[in-house]
Amino acid sequence: MMQSWLSISPTSPFSIANIPFGIVSTCEDATPRPAVAIGDFALDLSAFAAGGGFSQLPSIQEHLSVFSRTTLNDFAALGRPVHKEARSYLQKVLQEDTPYPSILKSNVSLRESALVRLESVQSHLPLQIGDYTDFYAGLNHAYNVGVLFRGPDNALQPNYKHLPVGYHGRASSVIVSGTPVRRPRGQVLQTHVAGSTGPIFGPTKKLDIELELAAFVCTGNTLGDPISIDKAEEHIFGLVLMNDWSARDIQAWEYVPLGPFNSKNFATTISPWVVLLDALEPFRAENLWPGETGAQESLLPYLQQQRLDSVYDIDLEVEFRTAGLDEPTVITRTSARNLLYSFPQMLAHHSVTGCNMNTGDLLGSGTISGDAPGKLGSFLEQTKNGKEPVKLPNGVERFFLQDGDEIVIRGVAGEKGGHVGFGDCRGVILPAHGK
Amino acid sequence: MMQSWLSISPTSPFSIANIPFGIVSTCEDATPRPAVAIGDFALDLSAFAAGGGFSQLPSIQEHLSVFSRTTLNDFAALGRPVHKEARSYLQKVLQEDTPYPSILKSNVSLRESALVRLESVQSHLPLQIGDYTDFYAGLNHAYNVGVLFRGPDNALQPNYKHLPVGYHGRASSVIVSGTPVRRPRGQVLQTHVAGSTGPIFGPTKKLDIELELAAFVCTGNTLGDPISIDKAEEHIFGLVLMNDWSARDIQAWEYVPLGPFNSKNFATTISPWVVLLDALEPFRAENLWPGETGAQESLLPYLQQQRLDSVYDIDLEVEFRTAGLDEPTVITRTSARNLLYSFPQMLAHHSVTGCNMNTGDLLGSGTISGDAPGKLGSFLEQTKNGKEPVKLPNGVERFFLQDGDEIVIRGVAGEKGGHVGFGDCRGVILPAHGK
Repeated sequence: MMQSWLSISPTSPFSIANIPFGIVSTCEDATPRPAVAIGDFALDLSAFAAGGGFSQLPSIQEHLSVFSRTTLNDFAALGRPVHKEARSYLQKVLQEDTPYPSILKSNVSLRESALVRLESVQSHLPLQIGDYTDFYAGLNHAYNVGVLFRGPDNALQPNYKHLPVGYHGRASSVIVSGTPVRRPRGQVLQTHVAGSTGPIFGPTKKLDIELELAAFVCTGNTLGDPISIDKAEEHIFGLVLMNDWSARDIQAWEYVPLGPFNSKNFATTISPWVVLLDALEPFRAENLWPGETGAQESLLPYLQQQRLDSVYDIDLEVEFRTAGLDEPTVITRTSARNLLYSFPQMLAHHSVTGCNMNTGDLLGSGTISGDAPGKLGSFLEQTKNGKEPVKLPNGVERFFLQDGDEIVIRGVAGEKGGHVGFGDCRGVILPAHGK
Repeated sequence: MMQSWLSISPTSPFSIANIPFGIVSTCEDATPRPAVAIGDFALDLSAFAAGGGFSQLPSIQEHLSVFSRTTLNDFAALGRPVHKEARSYLQKVLQEDTPYPSILKSNVSLRESALVRLESVQSHLPLQIGDYTDFYAGLNHAYNVGVLFRGPDNALQPNYKHLPVGYHGRASSVIVSGTPVRRPRGQVLQTHVAGSTGPIFGPTKKLDIELELAAFVCTGNTLGDPISIDKAEEHIFGLVLMNDWSARDIQAWEYVPLGPFNSKNFATTISPWVVLLDALEPFRAENLWPGETGAQESLLPYLQQQRLDSVYDIDLEVEFRTAGLDEPTVITRTSARNLLYSFPQMLAHHSVTGCNMNTGDLLGSGTISGDAPGKLGSFLEQTKNGKEPVKLPNGVERFFLQDGDEIVIRGVAGEKGGHVGFGDCRGVILPAHGK
């Protein structure tokens, strides 16, 4: 296992095996700029580049300006071979037996200017998002929700195992971890109130989470020319965690016939560090139903993959915090192997009509749930749509989220000391306006 | 009626009462730049500003740089009072008895550099689009489609008359009039083929149009703070025509439970000139069902408007061209008064959860249809989903679009000599790849 000359906790999600990219600012310099996370530090790539940090990587010299941008779009647009070289080079600079000690290890002045403690950086959205699409590729989630609304016999729609169902989401309200989420107000049908006719307006009473992964597109395609399944991975920059906050009562009233709209458009939180696909390569895995999808003949050829191990063995958890609890409580533990479709399949499907993808487009996986209580990625599933509470310590119960509740999603692959993790995807609920 | 010193055909959509804004380039200068359309000309605002054209409008002086941008976003972001002043000033410069003859009328050199014939300009998307949302506010269309799929008793969903149903669309594939449209391929269920099991992959056989209007947002709101119905108009830059191309067979298979996706994401065409709301102000009108929506109590307060005349009296038509026809044939004539909800209502609903709107966001109205054959905004309605052909001259028939067919949508308000129109919203169908 590779070691760094920096002291890194074995439980850190940002081991030297990771090197995720993000955008940070500091009190001293409010300009957002690219960085990588390493242990307890952000390595400010703007300062690093300005201080000659990339001098031993000739191929990046003509592109150094990408490290003085306020988003990672220009870096992402350089394509995966460049990302791979940059990550590999930074690992060499940071490793215990670095071949380039004078670059950073023994360069006190550059260490002081470029290494910033994570606790003193402000994270920003890593890329400017063009279009945001959310899929529905978590088979257990689709099944569980189907059972709730249509019963077990018709739980999955007929199309579900033939294509990765997805819908276009709202890009403007994708926010970075730590941004508070205002409880939305909207139209709700009060079906349970006797004598009630028509919808009422007010704060959602069914504010929910959705535990997801999401992929950023690095390079796109021309309108009219689909991305083939075999090339799709080359178009993916990396992954983040995502919490697709949802107002279930608004959703139930509005969603026919064109899908979720106001129930989703008020906020979608992502984790700040983009974990490159190269860092996740050792954790490729088959999904939990290898007979269902992949290279086999049950899918149309445009969705058939050369490799069955096209999802990732990432452990995911949802932590719940509120004032009435002495300490944070994990309410969900599951795995990203619960995704029936891979991101390359989603990308191939999305673009098969010729739809053009652009650098910075974001693809959500859909809610990731396991197959049992304690493994479910939404309160909708955990509480059977508000019928059975989630029981927490101190007698605290939740059907859905209350004001002041905080959700932290985490995800990590690999062994202690070599973790490839995402850091926190966090949000706290603010009361609705006008209360 | 205001007259211009420029010779303008009385049938031109671009009378001096209009002054719509767009983005153009020319063979001589390939850089896209702002312009207004007037008669047969584009007035290049970059050249006009550089030549001192705005010298008699002191309030615009500090903002002149917006006219050297490649999109109208910066101009739009200045807000409606500035748009109003700029349009009014350009009318004064162009009117017969202009108070500023030396600006353009008698300034031969500026006329030569800034007035370009429309036939020699290339139009571009007028704004860089952030998010694109499509509504479903055409009551007849929603009813007609509902009858086709659910019968007359359940044609409208229960929510339809309580809120403007909408969904998030694909922004990247919004294209400007004249861009050809590649027939998309995708998954289709062959329900009519005996013995067929599962979906097949191929070119859509039900390629359709949707006749729509669309609004560009000029100024947005902060995430968490809704736009109130009374302020919504101030956030709208202007309107364009839109053709929301749709693949009905792909749509039928994919759309449950999250709405249309691949069936819509391959192309959406808009007309190049943004007609400002100020230009449309004289054509305000009630919709055709004034008892249904507006200020009355049947809607929740956040959707109640002060004025019932919140849609526009715009005549719309769809023209069809193909090789087998001697001349173009109008297949649809209808009115924008068939919209049940206004754009301010759509904007208020969209943002009521706190969803943040940005400069350049695009809101489609949904398909606009009248209540009888010859007034329908889609082939789906005209042919009852492919059952009864549209009959055209020379024995030509169409159930849906064939390769080489061309659609031109037009829209105009006002009387001859004072037309406020949009110009063409045009697209021709290219054969699918791999045929």
